[in-house]
Parts: sequence; C-alpha cells; structure tokens
Amino acid sequence: MLLPTNRRRFLKGAALVAGAGLSRADEQSAADDPTTTPGIPARAYGERSRFERTVRVPNAQGTSSLTPLQDSTGIITPSSLHFERHHAGIPDIDPGRHRLMIHGMVDRPLILTMDELKRFPSVSRIYFMECSGNGFRNRRTARTVQEAHGLVSCAEWTGVSLGLLLREAGVQQGASWIVAEGSDAAKMTRSVPLSKAMNDVLIAYGQNGEALRPEQGYPVRLFVPGWEGNISIKWLRRIKVVDQPYMTREETSKYTDLMPDGKARQFTFEMDPKSLITFPSGGQKLSGPGFYEISGLAWSGRGAIRRVEVSVDGGRTWRDAQLQSPVLPIAFTRFGFGWKWEGTEAVLQSRCTDEHGDVQPALEDLIKARGDNWGYHYNPIQSWKVTTDGSVQNALT
Amino acid sequence: MLLPTNRRRFLKGAALVAGAGLSRADEQSAADDPTTTPGIPARAYGERSRFERTVRVPNAQGTSSLTPLQDSTGIITPSSLHFERHHAGIPDIDPGRHRLMIHGMVDRPLILTMDELKRFPSVSRIYFMECSGNGFRNRRTARTVQEAHGLVSCAEWTGVSLGLLLREAGVQQGASWIVAEGSDAAKMTRSVPLSKAMNDVLIAYGQNGEALRPEQGYPVRLFVPGWEGNISIKWLRRIKVVDQPYMTREETSKYTDLMPDGKARQFTFEMDPKSLITFPSGGQKLSGPGFYEISGLAWSGRGAIRRVEVSVDGGRTWRDAQLQSPVLPIAFTRFGFGWKWEGTEAVLQSRCTDEHGDVQPALEDLIKARGDNWGYHYNPIQSWKVTTDGSVQNALT
Repeated sequence: MLLPTNRRRFLKGAALVAGAGLSRADEQSAADDPTTTPGIPARAYGERSRFERTVRVPNAQGTSSLTPLQDSTGIITPSSLHFERHHAGIPDIDPGRHRLMIHGMVDRPLILTMDELKRFPSVSRIYFMECSGNGFRNRRTARTVQEAHGLVSCAEWTGVSLGLLLREAGVQQGASWIVAEGSDAAKMTRSVPLSKAMNDVLIAYGQNGEALRPEQGYPVRLFVPGWEGNISIKWLRRIKVVDQPYMTREETSKYTDLMPDGKARQFTFEMDPKSLITFPSGGQKLSGPGFYEISGLAWSGRGAIRRVEVSVDGGRTWRDAQLQSPVLPIAFTRFGFGWKWEGTEAVLQSRCTDEHGDVQPALEDLIKARGDNWGYHYNPIQSWKVTTDGSVQNALT
Repeated sequence: MLLPTNRRRFLKGAALVAGAGLSRADEQSAADDPTTTPGIPARAYGERSRFERTVRVPNAQGTSSLTPLQDSTGIITPSSLHFERHHAGIPDIDPGRHRLMIHGMVDRPLILTMDELKRFPSVSRIYFMECSGNGFRNRRTARTVQEAHGLVSCAEWTGVSLGLLLREAGVQQGASWIVAEGSDAAKMTRSVPLSKAMNDVLIAYGQNGEALRPEQGYPVRLFVPGWEGNISIKWLRRIKVVDQPYMTREETSKYTDLMPDGKARQFTFEMDPKSLITFPSGGQKLSGPGFYEISGLAWSGRGAIRRVEVSVDGGRTWRDAQLQSPVLPIAFTRFGFGWKWEGTEAVLQSRCTDEHGDVQPALEDLIKARGDNWGYHYNPIQSWKVTTDGSVQNALT
C-alpha cells in the first residue's frame, strides 16, 4: 500500500473534499489509508456510501420500478429499493390533512385523522409484497433477475388491524365485502372479502421502522398479506363495507387471466409459492471454477416456506437447500446451497414448497393448465444457464 | 373539502411544484385533493416524505447520534436512523481498494478483497446493537427516550461467519483470543475471546438488505451479537489471532466500570436485559383520558426475551404485556399493553425477563451492587411520569 509521496498527498486532499459531503464517486478518490484522515461527523439522517450504485429500474413510462434482487442480502428490502407500481403517479400528501373514512354497512361510520388512527393498538409483521404481474411480461427478454422478477420485495409493516377498526365501526348483518379506495389520481379501488378484512389485513402507516415511503402509500395504505400487491390500496382514504364485490376496473378488465375456454380467472387473490436464485443470476459472472454459495429467496402467499430444492443440472436431480432463520409466514425466506462449479455448462433452478404442500410448478405445467394468454400469478421455476466462461443467462431468452 | 375556486387553483399549482421534486415542506402545500393531480413518476432510489422530520440527534462533538426511539415502529431500525458512535469520524472507503487481513496464530494468513469475502456463504440475522454507555450519562437530564437511551437500534445484518474464515485460515494450538482493528483514524481495536469468535460473530457487509451504511462500518465490520457495540469494530481491516487479550485503550481506560472496592469490572461483554416504554415517553403528550396502547421495546444480549411486565403505578403492581412475534434472540422485541388512562398522575414502567430468567433490575439495586461511579451497561427500569395534563416526563429529572 506504499505509494510515492506526491500521490499520497493528492489522495489525502481528495478525501477531505469527500468529507465535505460531495457524492459523485467519479470525481474523487477515497484516501489510500483512511486511518490518516479524520472522517466526517455524525449525520441526522444517513445516506448510503457514494460507492453504492444499485438502484430500482423504472419502466419507460415511470409507472413502476423493479427491486435489484441480485444485490439483495437477507430478507428485508430497504425502503429506498422496495419495488413500486402506481397507476397515476405518486401523490404528495400532507398527513396532517389526510383522513380515512370507514362507512357503508356499519353502525358507526368513522372519519379518522392519522393521529386518531395511531391511537389504536399497532401490529408489526414482516411480509413480502408481490405485484400480480411479476415475471410474466419479461420472461423471455429479461437478462437479470431484477428485470425478470423485480416486482417483489419484503419489509416490516406496521399498522392497525382492519378487523379491530371494523369492530369499532360495527359491521352490519349482511355485509360480505369491503371496497378500499386510494386518494391517488387513479382512485385505485379494489374489493376484498370481509372474511379476509377481518382476519390479518392491516391499515399500515409504518415500513421498516419509519413512516411509509411516498411510493408505498404515505401516509397510510391497506396491506393485505399474501395477496397480489394492487389490492393493498395505497394512499388509502376510504373503506366502504358492502354486500358484494364492486367489479372495479382493476378486478374486471385488469388483474384477471383469460383461460383457454374463453372464461377468465377473477379474484385470484393469493400469490402462489415462488422461489428465485438471486446469485448466480442473469448478467452476473463467475470468476472461475470453484466453490460458490447459490443464494436465493422463496415466499408463498399462503404461509411459511417449508422446503427449497436446488438443481444444478436443469432439473434432473434436486437437493435440499438450507433455509435461513427466521422462516416467517408470508415473508421472504433466504436459502443457500453450497456448489462447486467445475467450469462446465450448468442450468441452475430452485423449487419451493410451502407449509400446505403446494409446490412451485414448471412452466410447461402452468401453460398446460392455463394456456398462454394470461399474465398474472406467474410463479414457475426460473432457470439460469451458466456458460463455460462463467457468464450467467436467463435460460428462456 | 370544498374550497373557493381561487384557493383550489393555487393549491393545485403548489402540488405541481412539489411534483418537480422540491423537498422543503415549509415552502409549499400539498394538494387539497390529491386525486385531481397526477403524482410524480417512479424513482431509482427512494426518499422519505418531505413531511417526515424525525432524525437522529448528534451530540455536540458530532461523535455520536441517537436513534429516535419514540418514533420507531416494529423492531427494525431504518439504516438512516440507526444510532452511531465513532471515535475519529466516519471514514470514506473505496470498497474496491479495501482489504481484510486475517493473520497471527494461523496456518494460512488471508488477505481478502470484498469480492473474495462475498464468495463465502452468507448469514443474515436480525440483531440489536447497543452502545455500552447507553442510558447512564443522560439519565437525569434527558427529556425524551431518544436523549436517554437512543444508543440502541436493531437491524438485519448480513455477512460471513468469522468461525468459517478462521477455520479457513487454520487457527493454531494455543490461540485463545482475536484482536480486531478498524481502518478509521482511531484504529479502534478490541480483543474478543476465540470461543465467541468461533461461535456467532459475523464479518458483516450487509444491513437491512443493502450494503452497510458508512456510519456502520462500510464496507465491512465485525458484528459481535449481544455484546457492547464498540467491540463490533467498524471499517474492519485486520483480525489477528493471539493468545491473550491485548489490553487496548478501549478495554482498559475506557469501557470498564470502577466498583466501590477500587477494582474495575473489565470485559463486561454482554448487554444485560433491558426494556423501555417508547410510547408514552418523555416529551410526548396524551390528548386526554381514554384508551392508549403502551408500546415499547425489550432486548437481551444473552438470548430471547421471555416476558415483559408493565406497571402504571410506579412499580406497585405489574401485569404482563403482549409480546409481538417474531420474538428473536438478541433482537428487539416489541411489546404492547392496553391502558385506560383516567386522567390522574401515573408512573409508567416496564421490566423484562430473558430466556435465562435474568430480570431487568431497579436502579436502587444496580447502585447497591455497583456503587455510583460507573457508566456502562446501564439497564435499570425506566420510569415515565404522566401528569394530569397528559404531559410525560422522565421521572428521574
């Protein structure tokens, strides 16, 4: 690490500039030896290192962005990298003026301020959230796991039990659904069966220990554990208790799957068991033969993951991966699998099973069951091909 | 929500400005009705709402900052709000040039790049971290739970098992400790018994699903679960395997406790069981008599929390609080306790017990055991006084 004196002096100066708070890594060098230079003082709200570049990738229209799963560690998605999908932009809402109305077939309609909402007991849970369209559209063209499957993330969500609020309002005889409405410019609206609403649904205001991010519905959203993401209405302003689903745009013309017999699957709420290898994955490159840990994520909208199997030979043989604790229901589970790469071509796959015994299917089986004219709830086994030079590709491209 | 046309038009204009990305809440208003205005598009790396103001509070010297526990939700501390403590500033380190050396009493010394380190199998765990000085110095003057106890946080940490790396290096007969050294300008150095190093210590590069933050040791730190924070050497550059503790500054003149008999407690590694009520806590105000959920956090460096009791009468009577799942070892556990405040003066306390039966002590008992000339491992029961007007105060002030 010894360098000519001149160069050492130059780099020290550069490090002092960095200490002043600039953030373009291109324009400066870090100190050769950071022990020779005092660092910057404490900050009120921290930022990541200027050397970190992983980002969500927004689509061309700016209506969604994808989580960089290939760079993820553990099971928590940082809020700055949580995927997003919106239908009319991210609104700018003053929490002091926001109201949540609960009305319809209730004895005591409620209009709550955020402060009033936070008076109720809070619940915090680590849950994944996945867009029902995740994986299908880009399945052949995607080069990376982010491009292919980045509409899924996992966070700790905090809020009030919707069941508690509904009991407070007094649900009337004959009610069987709720309708939730957002205060974005799309007025996103979805129907949810009352049985689910009374069970584990949250009126969420917290995400990973702080307020929801604007992209996630600030100041308050519905959170429907295990169900397709669009049902978890963001920027929530209204819940109406009703006696039938409302057949809104997002549950008729959108978020339904046309089957080969001409009928459509509708109200396909739960996200099916799914797993992905995040390392090695498309676009990455192995530096040479030797030991690697295959790492990935598994989840199921119906409960906990019980088992993940990995194949390194395109599905001919399977072996159990190790699940990392904690293994929580309706949350990412991180799995690992030790692998010695011999330098020959290999096809890597993972397959998960949830606590109900539901197994992640092969693509052929999904197409056999549903045809090829659908786009939601796409959970087949993903294959990554490792070529002899170590580069990794989406095997479907 | 209907307003004169002029005012509505003005506010719409203001919302469009907000959409352009400004972030000073003082200078603009949000739309009265966000459904009338398309929001902003997706962003590559998200930020919190401009209406959110909770921050870490740095000390006067800028050498530490305190987590706003009063605003925390759940058990995860967002990385931007994780407490920090450093001894010579936060260095600016280029991960591409950083190296970790493992040497001393080993058969095969290692010098690892970050890429090489990440080749090893990874482990992710949710762990609290607490500064050993948390709580003592400000115990009488602190007005808020942040000022009093903000040197504790909880995150998901990802890294490589140090035991695995040490086995890779081949620990020699007779070795019994390691010495870890940081590459900050303080060259922070601490000794750790080999038994702990081989057990659950991580060489951590991930925090809450992304790279460590600079304040937390970017690009890599030691993470010693359950032990006082300063041992988890940040900006880690060197681990030397040795046959005795090195009696560094941070384990002789600092981080030791003088006892009444003139001897000092040294190597007081584990953080003792501790709990805090975060709501209602000092500086907050109840809006009037009625139902409140008392909420708080409990943790123990020795394992999982088994029980939290709450008293609303200054410790005369205690009742069990509800523990929220997941209850993880060496992690924050969130507890809740329903309370109907009658409008009379009340003193709120919490007391936790860990899986080994260790109980959080009363302050009098700690002083009886240790005298009053120490400053570390301060874990007594915290009392908050609620006055008849609803304001909450530190009962020790």
